[in-house]
Amino acid sequence: MRVTIYNEYLHEVEAESVRRVYPDGIHAELRSAVLEHAPGAEVRVATLREPEHGLTQEVVDATDVMLWWGHKAHAEVTDAVAERVQRAVLGGMGLVVLHSGHYSKPFTRLMGTHGSLKWREADEKERLWSLQPSHPVLAGVPGSFELEQEEMYGERFDVPDPDELLMISWFQGGEVFRSLMTWRRGHGRVVYFRPGHETYPTYRNPHVRRIVANAAAYAAARFRRDESRSPETPALEPVPNPGKEHVLKP
Amino acid sequence: MRVTIYNEYLHEVEAESVRRVYPDGIHAELRSAVLEHAPGAEVRVATLREPEHGLTQEVVDATDVMLWWGHKAHAEVTDAVAERVQRAVLGGMGLVVLHSGHYSKPFTRLMGTHGSLKWREADEKERLWSLQPSHPVLAGVPGSFELEQEEMYGERFDVPDPDELLMISWFQGGEVFRSLMTWRRGHGRVVYFRPGHETYPTYRNPHVRRIVANAAAYAAARFRRDESRSPETPALEPVPNPGKEHVLKP
Amino acid sequence: MRVTIYNEYLHEVEAESVRRVYPDGIHAELRSAVLEHAPGAEVRVATLREPEHGLTQEVVDATDVMLWWGHKAHAEVTDAVAERVQRAVLGGMGLVVLHSGHYSKPFTRLMGTHGSLKWREADEKERLWSLQPSHPVLAGVPGSFELEQEEMYGERFDVPDPDELLMISWFQGGEVFRSLMTWRRGHGRVVYFRPGHETYPTYRNPHVRRIVANAAAYAAARFRRDESRSPETPALEPVPNPGKEHVLKP
Amino acid sequence: MRVTIYNEYLHEVEAESVRRVYPDGIHAELRSAVLEHAPGAEVRVATLREPEHGLTQEVVDATDVMLWWGHKAHAEVTDAVAERVQRAVLGGMGLVVLHSGHYSKPFTRLMGTHGSLKWREADEKERLWSLQPSHPVLAGVPGSFELEQEEMYGERFDVPDPDELLMISWFQGGEVFRSLMTWRRGHGRVVYFRPGHETYPTYRNPHVRRIVANAAAYAAARFRRDESRSPETPALEPVPNPGKEHVLKP
Repeated sequence: MRVTIYNEYLHEVEAESVRRVYPDGIHAELRSAVLEHAPGAEVRVATLREPEHGLTQEVVDATDVMLWWGHKAHAEVTDAVAERVQRAVLGGMGLVVLHSGHYSKPFTRLMGTHGSLKWREADEKERLWSLQPSHPVLAGVPGSFELEQEEMYGERFDVPDPDELLMISWFQGGEVFRSLMTWRRGHGRVVYFRPGHETYPTYRNPHVRRIVANAAAYAAARFRRDESRSPETPALEPVPNPGKEHVLKP
Repeated sequence: MRVTIYNEYLHEVEAESVRRVYPDGIHAELRSAVLEHAPGAEVRVATLREPEHGLTQEVVDATDVMLWWGHKAHAEVTDAVAERVQRAVLGGMGLVVLHSGHYSKPFTRLMGTHGSLKWREADEKERLWSLQPSHPVLAGVPGSFELEQEEMYGERFDVPDPDELLMISWFQGGEVFRSLMTWRRGHGRVVYFRPGHETYPTYRNPHVRRIVANAAAYAAARFRRDESRSPETPALEPVPNPGKEHVLKP
Repeated sequence: MRVTIYNEYLHEVEAESVRRVYPDGIHAELRSAVLEHAPGAEVRVATLREPEHGLTQEVVDATDVMLWWGHKAHAEVTDAVAERVQRAVLGGMGLVVLHSGHYSKPFTRLMGTHGSLKWREADEKERLWSLQPSHPVLAGVPGSFELEQEEMYGERFDVPDPDELLMISWFQGGEVFRSLMTWRRGHGRVVYFRPGHETYPTYRNPHVRRIVANAAAYAAARFRRDESRSPETPALEPVPNPGKEHVLKP
Repeated sequence: MRVTIYNEYLHEVEAESVRRVYPDGIHAELRSAVLEHAPGAEVRVATLREPEHGLTQEVVDATDVMLWWGHKAHAEVTDAVAERVQRAVLGGMGLVVLHSGHYSKPFTRLMGTHGSLKWREADEKERLWSLQPSHPVLAGVPGSFELEQEEMYGERFDVPDPDELLMISWFQGGEVFRSLMTWRRGHGRVVYFRPGHETYPTYRNPHVRRIVANAAAYAAARFRRDESRSPETPALEPVPNPGKEHVLKP
């Protein structure tokens, strides 16, 4: 499994409160989570300020599943790279969108919706409830678990109905949120997983780490195939006018 | 119900073979189909070559449901208008995408996928089978009906799994196609209905006309509301740190 | 719209704590909720201890949508009546299952699952969040509302993934629950709506009343048709051996 | 992977026309299909006329995935065994229902619907189209393939909307059918796969064999857990009245 972790990597550089939590960057913690559960994985890291955000066509082509963490600089991701990631998913690549990635370009392009939600940062408790313990993304995860402090995300989350709704969060302040969902898009699989605010050590929680790793394995590409074109196709059974010319031009 | 019919309106102007079938334009036939079943509807027409394709912000704001027929000039629809239509759907407007609209900008933006498919024009027979006769879009429509000549569209149709799969087509040449589907996106409803190639009198078929009119009524907006922003929201229950500042800047 | 309200009607007779809340029976409050929003509805009441629980074939045949409230005596509902209700739904009748009806025979037969869940009665607060404000069942209902005291139902709720997930509940004690869901079964529509414990005045809450009434209207039958049999059917196109006898007996 | 193949095993015994095609029974061909693609699988066979149809509690408990082929004697399967299989699926066991199993007791109990459809035996051609080539059940299967002669099954197939629609069949005589679908029920996964009429050598087709084996692997249990009961559960957060007694009896 070839994993590429995209991390915006600005908060950790700019804010002491974040650097204290993730001194080596959020990507380092995500990488260690993936490797803890999939020791044979090849993991690569890409960050916003690299050329093409580290997501050249070559990198994307050599990626089975991409993890995406971004927050304050979604707009700086170029449309060209966002489209490249979207097309890779449609061709079969997996995409695991984390936390504030709900507003990232690749995610909103794939969903077709705003991706908006309610939010609040108040050091409150989040408790995640599993709806499908037999699903591979929840293998080894208990029926519920708590994060002592997290940012709150509340419904209504503006996304299409998922193919699979796997977890719902309860928040201390009174909200709920669909926290773990999957959608098939083209030949690829998209997973959204809510927790992971930059000021809390969420990615060191063992259940969160397992879900991240499970999601990567679940979404990883089985093949890559470009389906952007619509081929004219000969009939398999007799038809009245097999050589008819299609009207496109006057 | 305020209906806006977008028709590309090029084939009818440019090709005698199409003008013969739809002398007043495809939009005229669609309008008469809607009015036949919803006599009180206000129906407006918009075409590609009008300023802003006839789809100004004022027109879109005053539309409960939009029908979309386009084929050879999807690329000429500006991104600004495509985004305007997309946002209107997310805010509650209905969108009924017809036939070759599978490749239109509003549809592919809302779906997030290529919208590709197989096709062939060979004057062959299409037979549509109803899967949910109790669904409002299929009210008054028999369990199956035939179109003597149509363009073939074949699977795999590159769209997200629909919320509702209502009809499947059988084609003489050996293919099948999911011909009538719905998706909720934001507060709006999208319907895709396959038949309607410009060289055949499909929109004069009574079952097709009824489905077009039913789909318009089903998808028509119940309200319009902009949900593009994510509001910070106060807690409804006590939280540890209600006044905490959110980290966004260094 | 012809509505039949089934109420077990035992708690109100047997327990003072319930009679105090619903002196005329839960069915009386449900009837008034339906009539408040659908004044023209014909509403009939059926209770467990009537012959055939008040649900004779004639009553069921004359019902467009049935509301179901039961709790302690699900087992006393005969299999014959449970099957009659199930078949009516498959034929097109609507069924709105309330609260403890999650364990009723008609519901579990239609779902195919146990319908199990976690529960607790502790006078705690429930807050329901709307996911699809543009859905007809949520017309006129705010983005969230509270019930000061309710029984808690917690996930995992053992039901099939719904066709539509419309509300999620937050509970004071820490749980979440998918509180408003719909499933199409055959030609009929099933709605499950969680609140409604017998010791709280939940069915006098204006939002709950509106949802009950909306759900009844949404699920009400459009037609009734028996689809229990599988007809042998002649070919619509030429086939090699149209008169072939089907092997069923030696 | 521990596989149990249930075969009614009457046609092969009673009808020369079937025995000629499946001299060792349909189960033998299914077993060889599974073992061809999953050489390490433990495969057991159960037939109708064995005590408890070969499906004792011990056998069911030791089964990760069950294949089900039955046709003329669904009614002879006892309710006790049907319920045992249903409960095993809800607890995590996989169930792959083949062809005429659409009317079997375990399948209709799990679906909650009639399972009815149109049919015809006329030696006609079936062509199956893949909608999701990247799905594990379709691994190694081409975009479409043909069966020269099969029984026809036509829509409307009376089942709940599937979680996953994977293949649609085209029939020479003019019908279509959703031929490969999956549903999660409880902790288990149900797969329905259409082809497999007893008078045709369908289970020797390499694509059919691969799908049968893939489906078994996909549906095989990850764990088994009884979720039939609804536990009273203590609050995780403070509630007003934690020791309150639940009203069930007068």
